[in-house]
Amino acid sequence: MNITGKNLIGNTVSAKYNKTFTGLGGTVKNISTNKFYEASTEEIDEAVTKAHAAFLVYRNFSGTRKAEFLEAIAAKLSESKDEILPITEQETKLSSGRLQGEMQRTINQLRLFANLLKEGSWVNAIIDTAQPERQPLPKPDIRQIQIALGPVAVFGASNFPLAFSVAGGDTASALAAGCSVVYKAHPGHPVTSEMIGKLIIEAASEISMPEGIFSLLQGVNYETSINLVTHSLIKAVGFTGSFAGGKALFDAAAKREEPIPVYAEMGSINPVFILPEMLEKNGADVANKLAASNTLSAGQFCTNPGLIISPPSKSTNQFLSTFEFVIEKSTPEQMLTSKIHNSYYNELEKFSDVSGVETLVKKTKEENVAAPNMFKTTAENFLNNKVLFEEVFGPSSLHIVAGSEEELIAIAKKIPGQLTITVWGTNNDLEIQKKLLNLLELKAGRLIINGVPTGVEVTHAMVHGGPYPATTDSRTTSVGTNAIYRFTRAVCYQNYPDNLLPDALKNGNSLKIMRKINGAFTNESIS
Amino acid sequence: MNITGKNLIGNTVSAKYNKTFTGLGGTVKNISTNKFYEASTEEIDEAVTKAHAAFLVYRNFSGTRKAEFLEAIAAKLSESKDEILPITEQETKLSSGRLQGEMQRTINQLRLFANLLKEGSWVNAIIDTAQPERQPLPKPDIRQIQIALGPVAVFGASNFPLAFSVAGGDTASALAAGCSVVYKAHPGHPVTSEMIGKLIIEAASEISMPEGIFSLLQGVNYETSINLVTHSLIKAVGFTGSFAGGKALFDAAAKREEPIPVYAEMGSINPVFILPEMLEKNGADVANKLAASNTLSAGQFCTNPGLIISPPSKSTNQFLSTFEFVIEKSTPEQMLTSKIHNSYYNELEKFSDVSGVETLVKKTKEENVAAPNMFKTTAENFLNNKVLFEEVFGPSSLHIVAGSEEELIAIAKKIPGQLTITVWGTNNDLEIQKKLLNLLELKAGRLIINGVPTGVEVTHAMVHGGPYPATTDSRTTSVGTNAIYRFTRAVCYQNYPDNLLPDALKNGNSLKIMRKINGAFTNESIS
Repeated sequence: MNITGKNLIGNTVSAKYNKTFTGLGGTVKNISTNKFYEASTEEIDEAVTKAHAAFLVYRNFSGTRKAEFLEAIAAKLSESKDEILPITEQETKLSSGRLQGEMQRTINQLRLFANLLKEGSWVNAIIDTAQPERQPLPKPDIRQIQIALGPVAVFGASNFPLAFSVAGGDTASALAAGCSVVYKAHPGHPVTSEMIGKLIIEAASEISMPEGIFSLLQGVNYETSINLVTHSLIKAVGFTGSFAGGKALFDAAAKREEPIPVYAEMGSINPVFILPEMLEKNGADVANKLAASNTLSAGQFCTNPGLIISPPSKSTNQFLSTFEFVIEKSTPEQMLTSKIHNSYYNELEKFSDVSGVETLVKKTKEENVAAPNMFKTTAENFLNNKVLFEEVFGPSSLHIVAGSEEELIAIAKKIPGQLTITVWGTNNDLEIQKKLLNLLELKAGRLIINGVPTGVEVTHAMVHGGPYPATTDSRTTSVGTNAIYRFTRAVCYQNYPDNLLPDALKNGNSLKIMRKINGAFTNESIS
Repeated sequence: MNITGKNLIGNTVSAKYNKTFTGLGGTVKNISTNKFYEASTEEIDEAVTKAHAAFLVYRNFSGTRKAEFLEAIAAKLSESKDEILPITEQETKLSSGRLQGEMQRTINQLRLFANLLKEGSWVNAIIDTAQPERQPLPKPDIRQIQIALGPVAVFGASNFPLAFSVAGGDTASALAAGCSVVYKAHPGHPVTSEMIGKLIIEAASEISMPEGIFSLLQGVNYETSINLVTHSLIKAVGFTGSFAGGKALFDAAAKREEPIPVYAEMGSINPVFILPEMLEKNGADVANKLAASNTLSAGQFCTNPGLIISPPSKSTNQFLSTFEFVIEKSTPEQMLTSKIHNSYYNELEKFSDVSGVETLVKKTKEENVAAPNMFKTTAENFLNNKVLFEEVFGPSSLHIVAGSEEELIAIAKKIPGQLTITVWGTNNDLEIQKKLLNLLELKAGRLIINGVPTGVEVTHAMVHGGPYPATTDSRTTSVGTNAIYRFTRAVCYQNYPDNLLPDALKNGNSLKIMRKINGAFTNESIS
């Protein structure tokens, strides 16, 4: 297969820098090269400059026209998936079944945003009509809409080579918003990235999108990422990855002459609270489900349940031993890269080094594969050791045995911001713990009752986000249709003649969208 | 009148720090003291700690209950305005008529937010119902809503002692969102601030709001503001004022262990473009309106039109001389404080020092009052001197004579982010300049056709915001009902039993609000 290893800057294939690297997931067989060219400062500037010019054209396209682009990308992925997925499997060691599912999710996600654009109401049109006779001053006509911010820098995630990578959620939502995208490929899967990048550029070209609407840059160096984020024409950043990586981009963006928003989704430990009656009645089933969620894809999910709090009771040991049994019998899987594999074992040591932390399952490090590990400690010990609040990326779980209202409330108050928090309880349990549920709401983007946190539904109501340090911007989501608002801002038009207004704001409402007119929702036109 | 000069920390009147100051607007007659106590670190901590405790209670109140609080504040202001306004007039030198209007606007603003809460749809309820039969995995029930962020630090503006101060837009929108407020009074009007702060606390107490839902801190020192913004329990910041002030708060917030959003509205030069046919047909009328807008309240509006671009034509001189005539005959007014008065004259010198800038109206500095100044230069000179892009706070205007498409486009591309941009044109002019209008949209929060930028309507569609450096967060507005979303974030509930959901998300829709259910807007219940 023909892989160039080069940067895709609009329609130009470019390799100006003499620095090259091999994908962190190792070499891929039967492709023309495994040598990738780090993007140079000049290439970053070319990509962003093209993205800016493309943005000025693309942002004015109708929703239907933008939807056509997203659908064209989805179609390309659908046609090429059998060619792509075996490569991705080699690069990431993720299972074929998992990747099939992730590809379908990526395709569906593009189509969901296309449908959102075709329906059109997402622009949040707000109209307050004039009152020329008002005293002491006439009231002007004011109309508001969401418009695109500008070129967006998107950083791919290692653990989702498709759904949070080249044609993933950040790219889909930024393009849907009307932004152009300069995509920085994750060095964990540069081959997959080039393949999908080419498809996006082909799709753009075939339906006459402006050149530069999408570019793909390769790179493994920190400086490359920082140079992209600090380019003056970049107006927002989407990132999924580690805390260190996301925070570095956030800091760089805040120090720019013009600070810009950085939407970094940096993971969390996704606490799970099991309440007493549920433990008694259904502990084994809960343990089975949570253990399966914890070890899925070698625990490489940002929503992996890493902290499980269960009450002290006669069923506690049975719960823990069931959990232990399930993870013990799970087949250890290869991790994404050797770097991630080494990090996993290093992070485990931080836990086992804490006095008062008991190791229930400890597997010696094996070449390549990540074996599950399981720890246990008291609420008091947990609350006093900040290191135990940190994420271990991999199939590890920390179990806290805690049951008093005071202990649960203390944990709820002390844990940092999370992507998800799960509570298992009977109706009776949940009724008793209303105060706990109310406090937990302040700490997560998504709250789950009697389920597992892994599996992030791509839908309108999803919030994949949460208070810092889960993300750098708790107000938004990186999954679901509302992700589009990360890349837009409000603008209003005062006393504009009807013909100069965007279609969404014209009296006639030819788009037939839902609008808020003088405070009331309606899809009627204005007569 | 009994003024304590002390900090109002919930129900406690406090003066723990031996540092005092006098209001920057000078002493006020017939009040018990003009000595104000700078808030100490300990007092800041007390206020924020109380605000946090109050938030945990208040955030769970119904919309109706929160609306009652906003209405109680509005009622207090209405009852006490005759007592307050003469004091504010002394403190700020703003005219009685202007202050009457500003007070009414402040009262109306509180009531507008109260109505928003009573109607209830502002929470943006989004519901995606479950599909238990879906293959390969069941689809969970997911429901999203906006919830309050936490205690908010609000900083008052010098130029709006009522509408952007103690009970102004930031306080109203933060309280409406469900946040508590720790308000840092502007040292330009500490007396007015104490009076209104007391009214808010009285209103809170009378309708049994939790103590600490509102506190007022006095201070003139930079450190006091920074200590408030960097308190770990503060979750967002609202600010209206200078670029230097807003940027300092933004930087401090970004460097916190937990970075928080800062909504700083920092003003702009509010460019006005006059197109050729309009100039020919109606130049004198346009000059009259813009000159009046430019000198209103000594030019102390963040939407003051400070940059006016008109085409070279036989009518240009007539336009400029009409503008000159109007500002010359305007009565110079006192500025808010002597500090602002001195700044105004210093900033004027930056302009007159630039070679190629012609001074059309220059008034020597008079004690207290600010006389209008008027400058003129070419597009080329303007584009090459960044200092000319800076705001002069006061009745100053810079006129650019430029008319070619290239010059207008070059200006549109080069000007930094603005709160407003205005275009005066006939239908014919506007049709010809569609490209210019399209580019200008990227540079401002509000675009105005054939009007003046001063006068910010408080309504649903208003955007009082704009790209940096007009604000530190272009995505939002500080005026209008959407200002509420600065202080909220999305949270979603997965597979929650109906009885544990917030009322806005329960199947029955007892609040009868507009919701988005499975992608479609409806105010029906779910059966």
